[in-house]
Amino acid sequence: MEFTVEQIALMLNGEIKGDKSLKVSQLAKIEDGTEGSISFLANLKYEHFLYTTQATAVIVDKTFEPKKEYSPCLILVENAYSAFTTLLQEYQKILANQKKGIEQPSFISNSATIGEGEYIGAFSYIASNCKIGKNVKIYPHVTILEASIIGDDCTIYSGVKIYPNTHIGNHCTIHANAVIGADGFGFAPQADGTYQTIPQLGNVLIEDYVSIGANATIDRATIGSTIIREGVKIDNLVQIGHNVEIGKNTVIAAQTGVAGSAKIGANCMIGGQVGINGHINIPNKTIALGQSGISKAPNKEGTILSGTPATENIDYLKTQALIRKLPATEKRLREIENKLKSNE
Amino acid sequence: MEFTVEQIALMLNGEIKGDKSLKVSQLAKIEDGTEGSISFLANLKYEHFLYTTQATAVIVDKTFEPKKEYSPCLILVENAYSAFTTLLQEYQKILANQKKGIEQPSFISNSATIGEGEYIGAFSYIASNCKIGKNVKIYPHVTILEASIIGDDCTIYSGVKIYPNTHIGNHCTIHANAVIGADGFGFAPQADGTYQTIPQLGNVLIEDYVSIGANATIDRATIGSTIIREGVKIDNLVQIGHNVEIGKNTVIAAQTGVAGSAKIGANCMIGGQVGINGHINIPNKTIALGQSGISKAPNKEGTILSGTPATENIDYLKTQALIRKLPATEKRLREIENKLKSNE
Amino acid sequence: MEFTVEQIALMLNGEIKGDKSLKVSQLAKIEDGTEGSISFLANLKYEHFLYTTQATAVIVDKTFEPKKEYSPCLILVENAYSAFTTLLQEYQKILANQKKGIEQPSFISNSATIGEGEYIGAFSYIASNCKIGKNVKIYPHVTILEASIIGDDCTIYSGVKIYPNTHIGNHCTIHANAVIGADGFGFAPQADGTYQTIPQLGNVLIEDYVSIGANATIDRATIGSTIIREGVKIDNLVQIGHNVEIGKNTVIAAQTGVAGSAKIGANCMIGGQVGINGHINIPNKTIALGQSGISKAPNKEGTILSGTPATENIDYLKTQALIRKLPATEKRLREIENKLKSNE
Repeated sequence: MEFTVEQIALMLNGEIKGDKSLKVSQLAKIEDGTEGSISFLANLKYEHFLYTTQATAVIVDKTFEPKKEYSPCLILVENAYSAFTTLLQEYQKILANQKKGIEQPSFISNSATIGEGEYIGAFSYIASNCKIGKNVKIYPHVTILEASIIGDDCTIYSGVKIYPNTHIGNHCTIHANAVIGADGFGFAPQADGTYQTIPQLGNVLIEDYVSIGANATIDRATIGSTIIREGVKIDNLVQIGHNVEIGKNTVIAAQTGVAGSAKIGANCMIGGQVGINGHINIPNKTIALGQSGISKAPNKEGTILSGTPATENIDYLKTQALIRKLPATEKRLREIENKLKSNE
Repeated sequence: MEFTVEQIALMLNGEIKGDKSLKVSQLAKIEDGTEGSISFLANLKYEHFLYTTQATAVIVDKTFEPKKEYSPCLILVENAYSAFTTLLQEYQKILANQKKGIEQPSFISNSATIGEGEYIGAFSYIASNCKIGKNVKIYPHVTILEASIIGDDCTIYSGVKIYPNTHIGNHCTIHANAVIGADGFGFAPQADGTYQTIPQLGNVLIEDYVSIGANATIDRATIGSTIIREGVKIDNLVQIGHNVEIGKNTVIAAQTGVAGSAKIGANCMIGGQVGINGHINIPNKTIALGQSGISKAPNKEGTILSGTPATENIDYLKTQALIRKLPATEKRLREIENKLKSNE
Repeated sequence: MEFTVEQIALMLNGEIKGDKSLKVSQLAKIEDGTEGSISFLANLKYEHFLYTTQATAVIVDKTFEPKKEYSPCLILVENAYSAFTTLLQEYQKILANQKKGIEQPSFISNSATIGEGEYIGAFSYIASNCKIGKNVKIYPHVTILEASIIGDDCTIYSGVKIYPNTHIGNHCTIHANAVIGADGFGFAPQADGTYQTIPQLGNVLIEDYVSIGANATIDRATIGSTIIREGVKIDNLVQIGHNVEIGKNTVIAAQTGVAGSAKIGANCMIGGQVGINGHINIPNKTIALGQSGISKAPNKEGTILSGTPATENIDYLKTQALIRKLPATEKRLREIENKLKSNE
């Protein structure tokens, strides 16, 4: 796609300094700008790039005053950073809306219903009694099994696998090859050392505005639902066990695992590679730093946790400092021992 | 599906207290019971839910005596919990057996053989010389490459990718998007800093009653076989390296990684996010707690390991207690130093 | 496939001791050798297997002198180990080249271009404006989205998902169900506790001779490119965040995560389950041991790191030794206290 500088200035409510007929077709960082690209300058730390960039146009704050010669056409706006973000979002929307219709071959059960504005990629599979909302984009190689419900304005990327009876709200995004609703890991030990599979008959319930990363896995509940509340953001390769509940607007970074029946509060921030024990109840606004291992829940909201086993971060830092001092401690101890010996 | 209370009581060998013609169509926890659902009461801690639940029917122990009015129809059985489990399993079997036949389009080589009772989902790919047993359910988007063998009564969920020459036993379940048989991670360092790929020509051998989680990866051997013994249960996102052998009935929780050529004994329980070094030999019945990092194998069966580097859990707990006491230790040391100073 | 011992000796420039007309059809470890298999003996530690193996042929160093009777035909070469590796590679090449042509049904946009020597598996999806080089093997269920470029001699295994605008060099291998180019994990916190999605409009750039493991995820950049340099080898289930750059010939083992905007130097060796913080700059030749958590970059090349938070391995080992001595330290401290008390 190609836009004139004028079109973009109109979209951003900006003022043009330069040739309004210039055309741009891609977005770039100011230091990487090439002909045909548009960039932005928000932080004056990067001002020097304006004087060397090959970008065709640069969005700047309207208060900005250049100190040297520059070649790009400028678009002056209230706030260059947020204007550029707006531009990114508009561009994304345009791209997303280009995908329309049902590609063939695809496999859609007669009993499935699909709202208008849909995109169904080739080789997608929608089983019986599924209900797909409006403006849903389903990329190739998605499997949606029986009686699953997907709300409006969702995007399901390639290779996502959704087990039966999954409920997904509106405005959700699920990235490629994520698996929603596989069996919880439940096996009953038998007297002979073998394990019997405990049937997993619950489902996964995902509310609105949830984002789930590539290759993440969310197991369905044994009975009842594994629940992902409104606004939750889950990164790539995260594991959510059966019967877990993740509270509203909680964010979980990559490769973290939440064991079965844990309940995580709202507005928590969980770092990458964190492990959370089963059957514990993490309060709202808890912050868990990367790689921490949470075996017990903190007893108040807003606690910052780190380490394994996780403790309050401030205690962790003190302990780490003392651990680093162990060689000195050892030396002091030996000195005392020597002194006492020589005193004898 | 819908059943009458009478049908269910017959299946469970139970006695009915209430209207035997009532119909139920789903399973629920007693506190979540709605009209049309059946639940159970096994632990009297939850007895109060019986008096408020909207469930149509509730399975109870035949020794149970209600203390208040209740609305559901009761089904009295020997053991309510195990009766409910039986119900879950029967329900699961009914669901599973509904899937039958070969959906189109699918891609099945002429030289592949498939036993009776099969389900092959649309867009599945079965390459030449594969042998698929009886009653095997292969969901959409599965790839099974050349000369792989799958036993009877297996379920292979959507998107599973099986590399050539993989051997899978009977009664196995592989969850969505798991990858069986990718290249082991083997590269020979060259003088110029680059790496040459070491061809990985072995395979993966999976015995009977094995379960493998969603998005798990099991690499094939360089030469010979990566072996998963009978009854092993592997959770989501687990990594099994090349030439690893996992002993009978060992259970491995999510996101654990086992490096190349490690051998894990039988009846071990490995927690989540555990790392196991290559080329070590873990004895039978070892228990590794979550996030532990096992660089050396314990020297006897039944050891409980934790921490990184992993030690016996009892030592780990002692050490952790002493680490938590480090601030106090520091204080004691300073007091001694002060005392000695003032004594001088 | 079947070869005579003579054909193999020719390929390896070896000399035959035995019946050159014998036929072999598989490769095996010497201890597992069965009739029809060929093996090798490089390390004399395994010499005893030569006298018991059922292998039809065994490759040995030409300096090797057997001490007992043996049954296999021998092939004498300069270096048995490297000859066997050559054999593995040749075998692999033959297998790979058997895959040719475009299987149906597949979905290839009219505007996509594909070089000669291609294999496109059934149910593969190649979107508009993609450019695929020569001798590229694309297995079933691969999705390659708009305007992506793949160089010559690449192998893309089943179920790999490639987002739009991804650039992949020559001689790359991507294993099953890996996801290249999903959204970076970028969300701007709002005053009301919700998060706004930050559009991710960059791409992923992968240079030549890169290998990426099964179920690995490499996010695209917010703006600009996430870059994987020439010769990088990435294992299964690894997470590479947005705007990361991985330097030439760096090797990353399974389940490691690299957070957004981190830059890793050339020729590094990163172990399994390592966590690397965002926005840090790891120097060339850094070695990170398994499960380490790198929050700060080391300040010189070639540093060996371990532990969380990661320190130089030599310091880590000292600290670990002192931690193990804590019970003894506690005892010494108590003795001193008692002595001082009794002196009072």
